[in-house]
Amino acid sequence: MKGLPQMFQIEKRNRKKTPHTCPKETPMSITRRGFLAGTAASAAAAAWSPVRAADSPTPKREVVLKLSSQAGIKGGVIPGASLDEKLAKMEKWGFDAVEVYRDAVGDEKTYLDAIGKTQLKVSAVCFGSIEGNLVSEIPEKRREGKETLRRALETAGQLGAVGLIYVPAFNGETKLTNQEIRQILLDTLPELGEHAAKAGTKLLLEPLNRKEAFFLRQLADAASICRDCNNPGVCMMGDFYHMGIEETSDLGAFISAGDYLHHVHLASRTRVLPGQDERSFVDGFRGLKMVGYQDYCSFECGVRGDRDVEIPKSMAFLRDQWELAVV
Amino acid sequence: MKGLPQMFQIEKRNRKKTPHTCPKETPMSITRRGFLAGTAASAAAAAWSPVRAADSPTPKREVVLKLSSQAGIKGGVIPGASLDEKLAKMEKWGFDAVEVYRDAVGDEKTYLDAIGKTQLKVSAVCFGSIEGNLVSEIPEKRREGKETLRRALETAGQLGAVGLIYVPAFNGETKLTNQEIRQILLDTLPELGEHAAKAGTKLLLEPLNRKEAFFLRQLADAASICRDCNNPGVCMMGDFYHMGIEETSDLGAFISAGDYLHHVHLASRTRVLPGQDERSFVDGFRGLKMVGYQDYCSFECGVRGDRDVEIPKSMAFLRDQWELAVV
Repeated sequence: MKGLPQMFQIEKRNRKKTPHTCPKETPMSITRRGFLAGTAASAAAAAWSPVRAADSPTPKREVVLKLSSQAGIKGGVIPGASLDEKLAKMEKWGFDAVEVYRDAVGDEKTYLDAIGKTQLKVSAVCFGSIEGNLVSEIPEKRREGKETLRRALETAGQLGAVGLIYVPAFNGETKLTNQEIRQILLDTLPELGEHAAKAGTKLLLEPLNRKEAFFLRQLADAASICRDCNNPGVCMMGDFYHMGIEETSDLGAFISAGDYLHHVHLASRTRVLPGQDERSFVDGFRGLKMVGYQDYCSFECGVRGDRDVEIPKSMAFLRDQWELAVV
Repeated sequence: MKGLPQMFQIEKRNRKKTPHTCPKETPMSITRRGFLAGTAASAAAAAWSPVRAADSPTPKREVVLKLSSQAGIKGGVIPGASLDEKLAKMEKWGFDAVEVYRDAVGDEKTYLDAIGKTQLKVSAVCFGSIEGNLVSEIPEKRREGKETLRRALETAGQLGAVGLIYVPAFNGETKLTNQEIRQILLDTLPELGEHAAKAGTKLLLEPLNRKEAFFLRQLADAASICRDCNNPGVCMMGDFYHMGIEETSDLGAFISAGDYLHHVHLASRTRVLPGQDERSFVDGFRGLKMVGYQDYCSFECGVRGDRDVEIPKSMAFLRDQWELAVV
């Protein structure tokens, strides 16, 4: 039982006394999803006694590549004259889900009707930053931001989306510092997380690259916010394009994200379709397999060339990269 | 050749065109130490062609646990009435190296003479922040900080230390923001890295926890600074105590640190000897093995109880944890 199974014994820490994911574990080491990772640390609590993590059975959680793409009434990666046409094409190509834009808020019925004609699920609602309102230096704007997010979370819930993608602030949208923004998030997000959970969805923090947002550039940092919030509705995502700029290791980043990770954006180094430049997805996919990722990987990128040719090609490329990601 | 060897194929990215560690690789995927990790991304450059990373031989770099401890003329973890006595004890207990304090700067001969009587190496010089001078809001202080660091790097080189441990600023030592501090480091550290390399040592950035330093809390962030500096003399370390507060995964953090990691501090959750509380080191040690870590793990902690009893006990505990860290 050495080698492979051990790789799934990833430990995770929660600084609070009541970790939401695995309440039976010690605060310093909670089990990642179904894997029995906590054994080592639990045994270590009885200091000096030999720790035998390898003795434990390690059930492996099946992880499959579920592909999604952004598509809206207007715009999106998928070609088509109407939402119906785009969704039909996605289904034909073998997508599992669609990621919609913020125009779905208030127009839920249009999306539900269109998506209802297919077998597609909704992976996420790509919402953005609401002009950085939630972390504005102006308290009134922060209140507005909270209300807007509450409403959007309800939409995400109605659509059955895994989560609502949320960026705290793009550069220039707030005058506050990293520390101040972080504190506001810790003060605000748990309440929004509660609201998300009631709506059957999650708030998903999205780290970007420094050119777009100086605050929240790395997955480990987003994960630490999720940990500090300690609320099952406050989670995060990763985007291969931004990760290519900010992370030194896709594998390390996804392992640090761990259970908090509930969405992934797919784009190449030059932000076109995966496979259209030299960007490898193998290391990142290995990370997704190692953490037992259960949600969607979704195109957010441009396309070089004929979309009807290049998108299926990119899907095949990704499936090949997924196979190469051996853990 | 599937399973275990694949785990060592960790990709790493360098945003610059001239990565210093592996100039023959593509910028997007450079080989980690001796492991042939680049195959996937290199082949992926020829887009759409199936990538067969698993076809490559994967030489495994041997990784051993080399223990060190802080010890100085005054103070340190190791008991003893004099430096000679402390070092003799360390050698007897099976330590591989000693980590000295900043009082070694200007007093190199005392340390060299004492250490020369043993087989111990010098793991690091624990230097600190020089009052945050290098990242001060006052330019004159920044110049002073640079000179002080240059001098200390020479000491580290003379002692044969792997590196000089450097904290950009403890809380309250600078009025600058995260972004400003980071920019100063990118502007300043490459020159200091050159100086370090000439002296035969390295500058080691140390991430702390938020209570001690709001700037630089996570290993992935330190690694991104090292990557952006792109200088072989600018590297980093990790401290299990701070990591316990700031990281969601020791494994993810060390993988993100990767080749930039050249020193590790050992302390338990409550900052006493490893094994004296419930803190597990297995997940972190697995990370060290996965990245092919070649340097020292060094005690920086308090001790509960009789040092002469507890320190050897902790060393045995760590060796046991090391064995449990199966990759």
